[in-house]
Parts: sequence; C-alpha cells; structure tokens
Amino acid sequence: MLLFDGGQAPNPRRTRIFIAEKGLSVPREPVDMSKLEHRSEKIASRNPLKRLPVLELDDGTILTESIAICRYFEALHPEPALFGRTPLEIARIEMWNRRIELGLFGTVAATFRHTHPAMAEWEVPQIAAWGEASRDKAVQFLRFFNDHLASHRFAAGDAFSVADITGLVSVDFMRPAKITMPPDLTHVARWSEEVSARPSAKA
Amino acid sequence: MLLFDGGQAPNPRRTRIFIAEKGLSVPREPVDMSKLEHRSEKIASRNPLKRLPVLELDDGTILTESIAICRYFEALHPEPALFGRTPLEIARIEMWNRRIELGLFGTVAATFRHTHPAMAEWEVPQIAAWGEASRDKAVQFLRFFNDHLASHRFAAGDAFSVADITGLVSVDFMRPAKITMPPDLTHVARWSEEVSARPSAKA
Repeated sequence: MLLFDGGQAPNPRRTRIFIAEKGLSVPREPVDMSKLEHRSEKIASRNPLKRLPVLELDDGTILTESIAICRYFEALHPEPALFGRTPLEIARIEMWNRRIELGLFGTVAATFRHTHPAMAEWEVPQIAAWGEASRDKAVQFLRFFNDHLASHRFAAGDAFSVADITGLVSVDFMRPAKITMPPDLTHVARWSEEVSARPSAKA
Repeated sequence: MLLFDGGQAPNPRRTRIFIAEKGLSVPREPVDMSKLEHRSEKIASRNPLKRLPVLELDDGTILTESIAICRYFEALHPEPALFGRTPLEIARIEMWNRRIELGLFGTVAATFRHTHPAMAEWEVPQIAAWGEASRDKAVQFLRFFNDHLASHRFAAGDAFSVADITGLVSVDFMRPAKITMPPDLTHVARWSEEVSARPSAKA
C-alpha cells in the first residue's frame, strides 16, 4: 500500500498520528500542498475531490477521508483500540470525535480558509465574515471542552482515543488560523500538554 | 432507554431511519424544534450543545450525535450491518458517509441556516454570502455523486448502508434549503427513488 501524504495539514497529520499510535509503518509519498500538488493529475485521478490523505492498496483500491483510512487500520489491527471496544465505548468515542470535529476542527478550518491571505486561491469565494464567525464558534466550543476535561483525563473519558487525535490536530491548527487560546482554559492546556507529549504527536 | 427526537430535522431523521432499518423499536420523546424546545432545560441539561437527537440510557448515560447513536445500535445489533463487516467495507462506507456529510449534508445545512428567514434566530450571525457559496458547493458535490452512482447501485457500492441514509436525509433537506436538483442528474434521481421507497424512509 501507499499513503499519499499532505504534510502538516490537519487531516493527513491525523492519519499519521493514528498509524503511529498503532505502531504501524506505512510507505508514504509526500504531496506538497503549498505547491497545490493535491490538485495534480496524480491525486485528482485517485481522488476527484482533490483532498488528502489518499491510501492506495496493492490492488489499486483507493480509500480517502482521514477517518475512513484510520478505521481501515483499526479493523486490520484492532490493538490498541482507538475507536473503542464495547458498544458504549464505541458510541462515546464517536460522539466526542464528532463533537470535536464539528465544534473545533471544522470551525478552525473555516477560520483559516476564510481569513488567511494564502487561502484566497483555495477557498473561492473567501468570506471573511464567515471566517470571523467561525473563530467565535471555535472559542465557544473550547470553553465547553474545557468544562468536560475538568473531570475527564482524555476527550472520550479515561482512555486515549481517536477523539484525542482529532482534538490535538485541531488545537495545533489554531496557530496558522491565528486563533488565540484563552489563557483561562487550564483543563484544555493540561490535556493538550499530555497528548502533545506522546511520541505519535511528532508523526 | 429514551430517544429525545427532533421531528423532520435531518439528524434526528437519520437516526430514526437507521433504527427502522435495524428493525428496532426505541421509545421516543418528541421535541418540537420549531418551538426551540431543543434549547429547553430538559435538553440542555442532557446535551449542553442543545442539539438533537439525544439518547438517554436506563442508567442515565447520555449519548448524542446522530451517527454515534447509530453506531451504538450497530454494536448492540450487528445485523443487518449498515457500517460494513470487512475492513474494506467498513472503510468504504465511512469514506462515502463522510464525503456525503461534508459535500452535501453540511453544505445543504449551511445554505438553509444562512439563507432561510426562519433561521435568523438560530444562526447568528446569518451570512447570506456563505449560504449562497454553500448552495454552489452542494450542487457541485451532487455532480460528483451522480458520476459515482452511474456505476454503483448504492452510495458505498452494492449494499445499502448508513451512507445512503445520510444521502437521503441530505437530498430531502434540499427542499427547505431551496436548492433545486439539476434535472440532468439521472443517476442521483434513480438512487434517490430507490432509497426513498424503502419503508424506513417514512420513519
């Protein structure tokens, strides 16, 4: 198999961290998104949506969407379980992964795409008012997440999961989006420090 | 258990269709979103994000996010499998469910929330330009989906799956969002007719 990778963009990074947490090694082909290489024929012929990451299996089967690729590896290599084992764990991890995706990942991405000058060519039309509204939504969600983390070590409870990976890449994506972390969110800071210290965070 | 339901809004409907496809019966408590009952203390105390559906288990455990609730029922009642069985099925269904969520469900919802007068109180600030840009994105995705359906019976391949449920509620949500289905998308029309004819579509 071959993973068409996308550098520091949050979705490719999410998949790499997941693979690292699984202790797997997957051959990678770097794709430079800053040079718009994800719009090249090489990528567009594999994923008409021109998004990364893309996983190509040995028989030519294509899998896209970072979480779909993560679930593929989870099904092939169930341990350590990052999507849960029991019905309740599975549901709770999915719930938090989606809450973070909708409340933080999506809002930070919208802020970045609709306010950063470098994105003017990517996001057409770029709508600054939507970027600013998304910035407010991101901070609002962080307050909710902070309250949750006051009594939970990880995003979905006691165990590290894919929801923490989604949270980590979202928080780190706040920097290019120029969203300031409110300094009073001490539980988010404590959680962020812990998940960032895992070796997988450097993947 | 008790399912706090939200009428014809797409996320509550998605969960109800899923439960019907499983052949299950779950006690429901209706919540009238047109009267903003999802912002009542009854819902907010269970889900601070004030979104529906909400599933309350007998021990008081709360599950939110429509797909998380669907996964809970899938784990408890694996047949018929709507999230796939093999690693490749699981990944492919997740891929298409997410493609449809991002490309259609999310863009139709943004069109509705940012252009419909009735949403002015819900979506603050309402940004018409973002609503119109989202309308274009929705139609653009439908063309991609139509090409895919030219050679696939269902969204994720040969078998009905949760990706079709997400697709169905998204297409039906185009009406209140006032998005016109381009008449040349014959494969989407064929697929839409088939999934709409299933008894679950009335759930």
